[in-house]
Amino acid sequence: MSLTVVGTMAFDDIETPFGKSDKIIGGSATFIAWAASNFVDQVNQVSIVGGDFPQSELDALSARGVKLDGVEVKKDEKTFFWAGKYHMDMNTRDTLATELNVLAAFNPTIPASYQESDFLILGNLTPQVQKSVIEQFTTRPKLIVMDTMNFWMETALEDLKKVISMVDVLLVNDSEARQLTGEYSLVKAAKQIMAMGPRYLIIKKGEHGALLFNENHVFFAPAMPLDDVFDPTGAGDTFAGGFIGHLARTKDISFENMKTAIIVGSAMASFCVEKFGVTRLREVTKEEISARLEQFVQLVNFDIDLV
Amino acid sequence: MSLTVVGTMAFDDIETPFGKSDKIIGGSATFIAWAASNFVDQVNQVSIVGGDFPQSELDALSARGVKLDGVEVKKDEKTFFWAGKYHMDMNTRDTLATELNVLAAFNPTIPASYQESDFLILGNLTPQVQKSVIEQFTTRPKLIVMDTMNFWMETALEDLKKVISMVDVLLVNDSEARQLTGEYSLVKAAKQIMAMGPRYLIIKKGEHGALLFNENHVFFAPAMPLDDVFDPTGAGDTFAGGFIGHLARTKDISFENMKTAIIVGSAMASFCVEKFGVTRLREVTKEEISARLEQFVQLVNFDIDLV
Repeated sequence: MSLTVVGTMAFDDIETPFGKSDKIIGGSATFIAWAASNFVDQVNQVSIVGGDFPQSELDALSARGVKLDGVEVKKDEKTFFWAGKYHMDMNTRDTLATELNVLAAFNPTIPASYQESDFLILGNLTPQVQKSVIEQFTTRPKLIVMDTMNFWMETALEDLKKVISMVDVLLVNDSEARQLTGEYSLVKAAKQIMAMGPRYLIIKKGEHGALLFNENHVFFAPAMPLDDVFDPTGAGDTFAGGFIGHLARTKDISFENMKTAIIVGSAMASFCVEKFGVTRLREVTKEEISARLEQFVQLVNFDIDLV
Repeated sequence: MSLTVVGTMAFDDIETPFGKSDKIIGGSATFIAWAASNFVDQVNQVSIVGGDFPQSELDALSARGVKLDGVEVKKDEKTFFWAGKYHMDMNTRDTLATELNVLAAFNPTIPASYQESDFLILGNLTPQVQKSVIEQFTTRPKLIVMDTMNFWMETALEDLKKVISMVDVLLVNDSEARQLTGEYSLVKAAKQIMAMGPRYLIIKKGEHGALLFNENHVFFAPAMPLDDVFDPTGAGDTFAGGFIGHLARTKDISFENMKTAIIVGSAMASFCVEKFGVTRLREVTKEEISARLEQFVQLVNFDIDLV
C-alpha cells in the first residue's frame, strides 16, 4: 500500500516575530512527505528541483522510505524559492519574493513504479498539473486528496473546478472556502463545495483548528494550544501529510477513520510549527507522536452527561 | 442547591446582516438565567430594572423557577439600554447607543434567602459591584464564576484585579486575555491570569469555541458549526449560564466535570444565536438540548488509534 505525493520542493526564507530562518528547505511535497513517512513505509514523491537543491536533503528523505524516482532534477536550473514575513498574529503573512524557477515548466511524468499507489495527494499546484497527474494513473487511486489556494480561484477557476470534480477530499482554508462559494457560512460553503464533486471537504482554520465535512456530518479537530507558534510555514501541508499518512497506514477511508486522521494531521502540524521549516518533523519520534495524540484525547474528550 | 446570578437586565436594539430586532429583552443576567434554569430548579436573580421593564418578562422568569427577590424595580426610572450593529463576520460589532439609566446607581443587596447559594456567577459589571456581592455572602459560595470585559481593564484595572483574585473561575474572550496580560499566546496569557488568583480560566473565542485552563491542563470546546449565526448577542452569557447550570445541577466542580460543563455551555450558546435575543432560549426543550449535546459528541469524539 503506497502513497503518491505530488507538490513542490523548495527553498524558503522566513521571517517571524521570533527570528529569521535564512534559506531553508520547504515546499508542500517536502512537508507532506516528512509527515506521512511516519505512518507509511513507501512514499512516492513527485516534484522538481534545481541543481542547487542539496543532495543531503534528498538522501534524508530516501532514508525515510521516500522514493524519489518522480523527482526531476534540472541540474542547470534553480529550485523554486519563496520568501515571506509573518505578522504578530502568525495567521497572516506578506510574500516578499516568489521565484518559480524550475516550477515554471513543471510537467511531471508519473513513474511506472508509482502506478500501484492506492493513495494520491496533490499538494497546491497549477490545476492543470494536478489534473494531468490524476489522468496518468491507469487505475484510479482508492483515495485522491487535493490541496489548492486562492491564487488558482482568481487565475484558473474553470480548470480548478474540473480537478475538484475529480477528487475525493478537498482541502481549503476558511477564506478560500468563502471565496470559492461566495458563502460566508462555512456550513453552507461546505455543502456547495461538496456539490462540486468531493465527497469529503476539510476546511482548515489555522490556529482555530479544522472542520471535516461529509454529507450532513461534520467533525472538528482543534489545533493544539501551544506556548508559542514559532513558524507556521508548512503547517497546512504537514496536516495533510499526517491525514493521508494515517489513512494509508490503516487502509480505512471511512468517515469515522477520517476523524482520527485529521487529529493525526493536527498533531503533526503542532510539531511542525515548533521550529523553522521541517526541523521538528525530521527529529520527531513515534513516542512523541503517540504522546501528542494522547494530549489531543485529553484536549477534546468529555463525559456524556445528558440532561 | 441554588445558584445566584448577578448581572444586567436590559433592553437591546440589535441590527445584524439578517435583520433588525427593534427593542427586545436582553442583559447578561437575563441570558444566564434563561440558560441555567434548564438545569437548576432555583436561580436567585440579582439585577435592577426600570418601571418600563415588562412584568410579563419577570413573570416568565418566575415560571422557570427564577427568584426575583434580588431584582430591584425603580418604578420612575428607565431600564438599561444598549443598541448595536454587527458586521458581516458576526464577530465584531459597533455600539450605537448605551444608556445606563438604572444601572448607573446599581448597588445590589443580596437577599437573606439567597445566602445558602453554593454557586455564584457574576455577569459583566463594575468590579466594585462584583466585589460587594462576594463580600455580602456570610459563607463563601462553593464556586464563584465571574465574567468581565475590556472596558474595566481600561477604566478600573486595580479594582478588577482585586475581584479576579477572589473568584474560582474567570471568563474572558481571547482579546481580553491578551489585553489583561500583554501576552499574545493564549497559553502564556492563561498562566499569567491563573497566577492572579482564579484556579480555572475560560477563554471564549466566539465562533472558534472556548478553552478551559486549570494548572497545566487544557480542554477545548468548539462552537457548533451552524448554517447561520442569526444574532450573537448574549451568546457568551448563555454559554456561562449553561456552564454554571450544569455544575450546580451535578454539584461536581472537578476539572473533568467542567469539561462537560463547557460543552453544555457551548450547546446552549448554539441555540441562543439561532434567533434574536432570548427567543430561542425561551422555547428550547430538554429533548432539543439532549440532541444538541449528542451532536457535540459526534463533532469531537474520535477513536484513539495510536501509532
